[in-house]
Amino acid sequence: MAEDSDPFGQSLWDFHRNGSSWHVIERDDGMIEPFNASLYFTTPRQWAPQARQALRLVHGRRVLDIGCGAGRHALYLQQRGFEVLGIDASPLAIRTARARGLKRAKVVPIENVSPRLGKFDTLILFGNNFGLFGNPRKARRLLRRFRDITAPDARILAESNNVYETDNPIHLAYHQRNRRRGRMAGQIRLRVRYKNLASAYFDYLMVSPDEMRQIVEGTGWRIARILPSSRSGYIAMLTEANS
Amino acid sequence: MAEDSDPFGQSLWDFHRNGSSWHVIERDDGMIEPFNASLYFTTPRQWAPQARQALRLVHGRRVLDIGCGAGRHALYLQQRGFEVLGIDASPLAIRTARARGLKRAKVVPIENVSPRLGKFDTLILFGNNFGLFGNPRKARRLLRRFRDITAPDARILAESNNVYETDNPIHLAYHQRNRRRGRMAGQIRLRVRYKNLASAYFDYLMVSPDEMRQIVEGTGWRIARILPSSRSGYIAMLTEANS
Repeated sequence: MAEDSDPFGQSLWDFHRNGSSWHVIERDDGMIEPFNASLYFTTPRQWAPQARQALRLVHGRRVLDIGCGAGRHALYLQQRGFEVLGIDASPLAIRTARARGLKRAKVVPIENVSPRLGKFDTLILFGNNFGLFGNPRKARRLLRRFRDITAPDARILAESNNVYETDNPIHLAYHQRNRRRGRMAGQIRLRVRYKNLASAYFDYLMVSPDEMRQIVEGTGWRIARILPSSRSGYIAMLTEANS
Repeated sequence: MAEDSDPFGQSLWDFHRNGSSWHVIERDDGMIEPFNASLYFTTPRQWAPQARQALRLVHGRRVLDIGCGAGRHALYLQQRGFEVLGIDASPLAIRTARARGLKRAKVVPIENVSPRLGKFDTLILFGNNFGLFGNPRKARRLLRRFRDITAPDARILAESNNVYETDNPIHLAYHQRNRRRGRMAGQIRLRVRYKNLASAYFDYLMVSPDEMRQIVEGTGWRIARILPSSRSGYIAMLTEANS
């Protein structure tokens, strides 16, 4: 098995070339879930009306799509006239997004977001990409740093999944296990596997709206609005705390 | 993770109840492949014409379906008037086959096949279930034992996959690795995973028609016919060696 490789990007790239691909998410408790890569190639027409609605909250001209994947949001916004930069930690995701027509796409993990990327009017973290913050401490550090790359009236649109809205005993036991270890219940440790490739394990942070509020507090941002985006998912719109 | 549990059966049972389920096959080199449980619920109408043709080779009255899964072959043959016993190592697969209407179904792993099950005119190992023989030595031992549960003019219909018909470098490297370890190239070591369940690792034996011929030699059986069943799969009809 090729560890610490790019299974996620390879799955997207293969889907782009062959029209089908499934990768697998493996949680650190051994829970395993197949994932259809087609999700990353959907168009707004295939999304829930609530998810489409969130796109109308993108404002200004310059948009940074953090964790852009195959570019499903970035491409739509580019087509609508926004100046979009897509970034992703996965080199093959970026290759896929470029091959699909995204003009500006760079391999940049969220940890390396810096003013060198430019200034933006809207940052988007759709597709549960609030999770890329990994843990609350890192979330706060990055949110503060995002002030350096945003215009005065900027917005952050960040999607998360309210993990508490489940009655699945496997998930509930996992939340307990996380709490016992001093982690947030929804601080999910996982890796991606695809064919003979496996990523390193990483933390993906799923929070309730209340937890997000606590994390955002004191970072220079505040939750201005919450839109439900799916059964247990929601998109938070963050604006400057003092606006 | 619940190890040595029944992920395969749980996946079938969940599909039976909810109409959708995916489990995952994990090979011992780390290769991972999602599997749609719907395969186990197909009807002959959905099979390749060659696979349907093999059903016409079932003869006599009493049929033993070894590794019956959710009963897709057994149910069809039962409906056609055969007296079918389905056996499977998976308790939940057997529960599923019964719930779907299979009258005779028992939890019996292939290793425990014995005259207590009765005498049969045809044994079927469809769906690559030649693989259940695990390794060549065990295959020969079991084939010899099968003489004790079969009528004089009995047939065995066993499906396998000719693993050599691939140019996938991951598979080719796996064959090499197996050979270096003194195993047959297609002696695949794998486990099934589903949600938080994982089976023990077990050997699943995929052979070319030539390899099958060598294995069968001297067991009291001979290959009377080979039918292609898919791109690289085939069904062998075994009859008594001295008939």
